Amino acid sequence: MLQLGASSLSANDITALLLGIAILLGLARILGERARRYRQPSVLGEILAGIILGPTIFGALSTYLVAKGFLSHNLFELIFPLEGGEKIALDGFITISATLLLFVVGLEVDLSTVIRQGKEAIAVSLAGIVLPFTFGFVIAWYLPDFLGAGPRGIGEDGQLPFAIFLGIAMSITALPVIAKILLDLNIAKSDMGMLIISSAMLNDLVGWIGFAIVLALLPVTAMVIPDPAAIHSATEVVTDAVNNTGSSQVVTTILITLVFLALMLTLGRLACHKALPYVQARWSWPGGVLSFVICISLICAAFTEYLGIHSIFGAFVAGVAIGDSTHLSERTRDTINQFIMNIFSPIFFASIGLRINFISEFNISIVLLVLVLATVGKVSGSYFGARLAKLGKREASALSFGMAAQGAVGIILGQLAREAGLINDELMVAIVVMALTTSLISGPIMQIILRLQHQRKLIDFLTDKQVIIDPTSTDIMQTIGELSKRAAEITNLKAHDIYKAVLQRERIMHTGLPGGLAVPHARLDNLPKPCVVIARHRNGIDFDAPDGKPAQIIGLLLTPTDQPETQIELLSLFAKSFSRNEIRQRALEIKSPTEFLAVLNQAAAEEAEATSPH
Amino acid sequence: MLQLGASSLSANDITALLLGIAILLGLARILGERARRYRQPSVLGEILAGIILGPTIFGALSTYLVAKGFLSHNLFELIFPLEGGEKIALDGFITISATLLLFVVGLEVDLSTVIRQGKEAIAVSLAGIVLPFTFGFVIAWYLPDFLGAGPRGIGEDGQLPFAIFLGIAMSITALPVIAKILLDLNIAKSDMGMLIISSAMLNDLVGWIGFAIVLALLPVTAMVIPDPAAIHSATEVVTDAVNNTGSSQVVTTILITLVFLALMLTLGRLACHKALPYVQARWSWPGGVLSFVICISLICAAFTEYLGIHSIFGAFVAGVAIGDSTHLSERTRDTINQFIMNIFSPIFFASIGLRINFISEFNISIVLLVLVLATVGKVSGSYFGARLAKLGKREASALSFGMAAQGAVGIILGQLAREAGLINDELMVAIVVMALTTSLISGPIMQIILRLQHQRKLIDFLTDKQVIIDPTSTDIMQTIGELSKRAAEITNLKAHDIYKAVLQRERIMHTGLPGGLAVPHARLDNLPKPCVVIARHRNGIDFDAPDGKPAQIIGLLLTPTDQPETQIELLSLFAKSFSRNEIRQRALEIKSPTEFLAVLNQAAAEEAEATSPH
Repeated sequence: MLQLGASSLSANDITALLLGIAILLGLARILGERARRYRQPSVLGEILAGIILGPTIFGALSTYLVAKGFLSHNLFELIFPLEGGEKIALDGFITISATLLLFVVGLEVDLSTVIRQGKEAIAVSLAGIVLPFTFGFVIAWYLPDFLGAGPRGIGEDGQLPFAIFLGIAMSITALPVIAKILLDLNIAKSDMGMLIISSAMLNDLVGWIGFAIVLALLPVTAMVIPDPAAIHSATEVVTDAVNNTGSSQVVTTILITLVFLALMLTLGRLACHKALPYVQARWSWPGGVLSFVICISLICAAFTEYLGIHSIFGAFVAGVAIGDSTHLSERTRDTINQFIMNIFSPIFFASIGLRINFISEFNISIVLLVLVLATVGKVSGSYFGARLAKLGKREASALSFGMAAQGAVGIILGQLAREAGLINDELMVAIVVMALTTSLISGPIMQIILRLQHQRKLIDFLTDKQVIIDPTSTDIMQTIGELSKRAAEITNLKAHDIYKAVLQRERIMHTGLPGGLAVPHARLDNLPKPCVVIARHRNGIDFDAPDGKPAQIIGLLLTPTDQPETQIELLSLFAKSFSRNEIRQRALEIKSPTEFLAVLNQAAAEEAEATSPH
Repeated sequence: MLQLGASSLSANDITALLLGIAILLGLARILGERARRYRQPSVLGEILAGIILGPTIFGALSTYLVAKGFLSHNLFELIFPLEGGEKIALDGFITISATLLLFVVGLEVDLSTVIRQGKEAIAVSLAGIVLPFTFGFVIAWYLPDFLGAGPRGIGEDGQLPFAIFLGIAMSITALPVIAKILLDLNIAKSDMGMLIISSAMLNDLVGWIGFAIVLALLPVTAMVIPDPAAIHSATEVVTDAVNNTGSSQVVTTILITLVFLALMLTLGRLACHKALPYVQARWSWPGGVLSFVICISLICAAFTEYLGIHSIFGAFVAGVAIGDSTHLSERTRDTINQFIMNIFSPIFFASIGLRINFISEFNISIVLLVLVLATVGKVSGSYFGARLAKLGKREASALSFGMAAQGAVGIILGQLAREAGLINDELMVAIVVMALTTSLISGPIMQIILRLQHQRKLIDFLTDKQVIIDPTSTDIMQTIGELSKRAAEITNLKAHDIYKAVLQRERIMHTGLPGGLAVPHARLDNLPKPCVVIARHRNGIDFDAPDGKPAQIIGLLLTPTDQPETQIELLSLFAKSFSRNEIRQRALEIKSPTEFLAVLNQAAAEEAEATSPH
């Protein structure tokens, strides 16, 4: 197709836009699912996808291949260009993604808990701000050149805003990242989860307001802009700073923000609660509510963006106000949640790594200094605040690491400061590395501190190879033989040894269970880890079950002799997984090992949903 | 916030982007729901929202208010600017919306039906192309100046491409619009619906390929570009036309498109069918499948955009390939459907009216000529084709009006031709008016021809005023008195007359039903239309029901004497609406008339879902 002019997207732009979003989404979800399998928050894999697709790896590789003549075009620059229509359209889509993500995060907030924890939240967030802010302010004040102050962050006029900025950069908390981590760890609705979210919310509010002050303080004169391309924007920045963010303007912004927050959480919340039944009575259902709530969140997002506080705050506040209503049905929540968490959220997190080369701009001293000061300051400050708020030591530690996740918000602030000429690229990379590292470690550390353990599921023990569909066997011996043979291939033990051990156990008493199940099992000395092999036998084998039914789903459960508890765990997992008649029925209808696993996975998800508190 | 440079979105851009999307979505949904209440396809209201928000009304009003000094800024230009970052970002979002919409449309296509109808589809689409194409070609060939040929559409070199273009513009069918109309009318899955969709698909394929030929034929020299801003793009158009769309290039594009189509519908379809169980077995459920299918659709969309055939085709084909798999669960379909049809689709349709002033560029002769020729040509051509394919007269008529909807595709083509200097603004408006008019009328006309009647629901008879929550009455007489009084306010009859008539009926036999329901009713001579008043009585009134339970939901049903069938209809609607124990329970828990209606609306939607063929 055609280039429609400077203000339109060309066919190439659209191709790159769609492909770019598809690749971001695809890789982010693949790595996110991988992280989840290693029991990590999926946001970890999603951010990693961005680093891989960004200039650090994909970009560098493209450049290399072009230089070597293997590629005629730089693929990275084609798909994720640094300027032009597609970049703007992609940025717009990512902004909308971030906004919707924060809306979902807001929906999850239980306002009554937050209000109940008001005092604690203030303690945690203030203590969590003061300490890292001081660290950042002091080193920035004394070592601006070493740290990487930009052209407008040095000299008499630049020293103060640069120091304040670094203080803020050290003390900000990433609401979206931490909320996602809490959701992933399934503790977002716990008291501690809510305390972290309310503290982070206060924290960010203070941070953004502080950043507005930095902009107001920026020197108008004495500009040394090294990059000619930046002159235009920097000039505008200054004009903006003078016109819009003078000190009285800053005070006004703060006041309006607080009024907006107060109004939304009182009148706005009530209005949504009153409006929802009307929409549900008069509009198509459930689609009407869906449009309504997304519309409200976008309007609030636009409003806070207009105030200069960033769109994600408005969306978050809208989510809190709407999510509180008992009239928002489970089904609407679920549709919003599924679509946003599986489409928009991965795209947003992957986008973080998309604009930075983590190798060329890497200065180890600055990175370490920023990382250590931010982590130590934030963790110890929040810990102190949490202890003040009378939390136990374990909870206070977990919370303090939760508060340390800087994520996207730190990066957005850094980006703004870099564009304003306040910091240089090396400091920018240090801030990004710090933000990513804290985001990456806070989940796992919280998990360790809180001794959170994912309950294992039967499917965690299974691969395609461990499922046999319709074996040819016609009696118990043959069936155990087939299962043992497959187990032998997987464990490298001898099939005959397995067979003998299982048969020995079977001779004591047959292992048929009611409902067409059977669990032949054995403990083996030289087995390094548990091994499960399942046969789906459509004709059924008589395993002498109490209800007399032939076994159609037969699970061979082998466990190491020194792990007696694992045998119990596997037996109960197997029985529980197939306890519902519907699941057994579905398992009988499928045609391949993969489909068998799909049934199990789906059943586990349904089980988890049915038992979730929400 | 700050302007980050020419290739980034400023805070103002982001504010306008979020606000613009919110306003488009909000008004489109409000008018869409309104259209639905008048039993029209909701797309009608959605397109109308765009015309209201576009330059025609909102834009003109803003300009007027600024000129009069009532506004300091032109609100329309702030929210929907004609150039700059926000416009590009909004265009990108709209492109993605159109792509996802077509994906859902594709999901709904039942491939086996399309294949079964292959011959018919070819007849319908070819006949539907030949006639309007001839009309368009002939008048364009002889009257280029009158019609509004652009600078490159006149003279010896321009005559042929201009004539071909107008032929194509007359014969194109709008897949997204027509598909939405069919979905709205609930006949997308009928044989005729599938035939319309398969014909429209073939039709568009031919149309787009034809348009590529037009571009190849465009004269390189003899350019007279009146608008200096267009020079840049027009130059590029020519370069594109020469470099990329030479005749061998055209053939290649056609071949690759056909190969892509064939591969996706065979191997791609099989691959998706095989991949879905894997994703469902290994990824989180149901989110994993959601990401997977959206990702595939975006990749296919990018590929067809790259080919020059427009992204929506790839998404559509991906939808067809994936939707065919039995492994795509009902729940995943539902989440995709709800989110896309209620968020992306209204935004896309509203966007159509956003760039055109329908008043200033309106030339009645051209508009009428284009409208009449396109409609007559398309309708009679498709009718002829449908009769050839052995459809009955009624079905053939309905189908021919279905094929006449030109919608967005006609507009996109017109837009491209206008930017290429092939047509002028007046012809562009005529094409848009024709596209919109045909889109607006085709749904209602089909509805009339097919005598489609929406089954009425109880809620269609009710407003807040017709629901009484917890009246103070304690016996039958008082209750009927209260209900009659409310009915009198609504109907302007005398309360006493109603009371007397109802009581008379009640004396023959009490109207209590099992499950806590009661239906006092009467036929009245001077009642112009049926009137229902429902009382939700928490304590219950004894209406002598067979099961002895006091009535807690009491429906007063008044019908005109000359409509005996309406009384039966209302009685059965009332009984059916509250037949499920769960619904009665919910109705007892609510606190206001609106909430009561919300319960009814939700119940009706659940009912419709449970009985839908899908």
